Amino acid sequence: MRPDWIAVDWGTSRLRAWAMGAEGVLAEAQSAEGMARLDEGGFEIALLRLIWPWLDEGQAVPVVICGMAGARRGWHEAPYRMLPCAPVDPQSLVPVAAEDARISVRIVPGLAQSRPADVMRGEETQIAGALAVLGDFDGVICLPGTHSKWVQVSASEVVSFRSFLTGELFALLSEQSVLRQGLVGEGWDADVFLAAVSDGMSHPQKLGSKLFALRAEGLLQDLPPASARARLSGLLIGLELVGARSYWLGQPVVLVADEGLAERYAAALAAQGVQARLLPARACTLGGLAAAIGQLTTAVSGTGRKA
Amino acid sequence: MRPDWIAVDWGTSRLRAWAMGAEGVLAEAQSAEGMARLDEGGFEIALLRLIWPWLDEGQAVPVVICGMAGARRGWHEAPYRMLPCAPVDPQSLVPVAAEDARISVRIVPGLAQSRPADVMRGEETQIAGALAVLGDFDGVICLPGTHSKWVQVSASEVVSFRSFLTGELFALLSEQSVLRQGLVGEGWDADVFLAAVSDGMSHPQKLGSKLFALRAEGLLQDLPPASARARLSGLLIGLELVGARSYWLGQPVVLVADEGLAERYAAALAAQGVQARLLPARACTLGGLAAAIGQLTTAVSGTGRKA
Repeated sequence: MRPDWIAVDWGTSRLRAWAMGAEGVLAEAQSAEGMARLDEGGFEIALLRLIWPWLDEGQAVPVVICGMAGARRGWHEAPYRMLPCAPVDPQSLVPVAAEDARISVRIVPGLAQSRPADVMRGEETQIAGALAVLGDFDGVICLPGTHSKWVQVSASEVVSFRSFLTGELFALLSEQSVLRQGLVGEGWDADVFLAAVSDGMSHPQKLGSKLFALRAEGLLQDLPPASARARLSGLLIGLELVGARSYWLGQPVVLVADEGLAERYAAALAAQGVQARLLPARACTLGGLAAAIGQLTTAVSGTGRKA
Repeated sequence: MRPDWIAVDWGTSRLRAWAMGAEGVLAEAQSAEGMARLDEGGFEIALLRLIWPWLDEGQAVPVVICGMAGARRGWHEAPYRMLPCAPVDPQSLVPVAAEDARISVRIVPGLAQSRPADVMRGEETQIAGALAVLGDFDGVICLPGTHSKWVQVSASEVVSFRSFLTGELFALLSEQSVLRQGLVGEGWDADVFLAAVSDGMSHPQKLGSKLFALRAEGLLQDLPPASARARLSGLLIGLELVGARSYWLGQPVVLVADEGLAERYAAALAAQGVQARLLPARACTLGGLAAAIGQLTTAVSGTGRKA
């Protein structure tokens, strides 16, 4: 197997790669060598460790990377592109000099907004992938996750966006805070989740006390872990939804997310009367990277479109 | 030196002990052997490691402990006392069987409230110490910290209280989140702090995005760490103040805190027109433990007051 190109999503905590052929994904691989684990010299080695079975001597295979490999502390800094702009511009891919001659590496730069200050790395590629499916879409794309993004798109350009620390707060609180003991276990209480979303939206000022109440109810009233986890998630997603209201209110909303988060956000939005269209995150990442490499090919042949 | 008694504050992360005589503190010692580091069998050893220089053979010296030693995972569970009640009741101290005959150990139980569910361990002792100074006080005591407490006191009893996860959120975000790199450094920007308190109070629903903005401004606009830290603290304290508004609005407020936090909370409250009276946390802890042991002596001699 020799792929036409290799797609790479380099997150803070994970590295994912796909061997791509004319028919799509030929093979995939992943490791825990995310950006946080690596220093500058370690990126190429971590990548080769994952993709070496797909390489052979001869012509270099194109590798297109989105995510944190382009951060200041990444493999090679790919400076942010400023809004408004197309989510991905093939002519702005940043080439990286790899030591191994079997790969030809390019990084997709992230996007930045100056007022209010905001940044993304990786989501711009998913947005491009979503737009490849959605076509002529004017509306809002929500990308929930560690740093959830709400993105206003118009005329194929990203117009504005806002990030929320929701997923990171959930991880810190559920894994490292005093609440963690009360959250260990299986199950999920969907009713508790929706009630907490509503509560978080209605009373964002009570977040600090509602969080401690999870601990107190665990001690005094044996709050089941399935309820505690659903309540924690609901409070934080509710806080995000009320903060992002200007994005989703009265707008067509597309959710780009993996299964679990997509369901939670879709249910929370449905309770607000918003029927979001779901697109799987992985497919959007691959679609966006494909768009980048496809446009690159076009651009090289002299017919690149204006970004 | 042989102390009349030994005062102990056993927190989650620290253990503090004071050798007490007729004139007050004779000596003090502390270690990092907080509850989180110990299992059941380790408490007595950790305590003896700290206080052995103050012990000798003969009559056992009374040791009074407040804090997490009385938790379910502590040395010996001291069940919560339910509100409304006096903050400390000498007749409810829980004796612990120590193996070492040179100490006679009692634990001050924490307080619990059923609606809304809430708990405290350690603060009840500081409240008792504060009331020993304040005398006949009707009003609100604020104890900022890892789990800040706002406490309504009337007729020498704790009537209601509410805990906020403020300090723990600050620690998690400043030490373990994506924001931490932008917070490393010296200095404090008092103006930025007060602006952030006001912002956090006015727009609690924007917390998630304001937190991520600290990261984005660090990347795009070189936000100084002194400003970032002050803003993070201000946003979280602002969120607490707006959530606790029903406690402090139009009430006499007493702040029981160590120097740094006391200054921040006093400044934040002053900006809301509330002139809080400050009492140092350590003195309140010692005063509350003294009240517990003093009342115990009285109670034993048959004139204990009704709790």
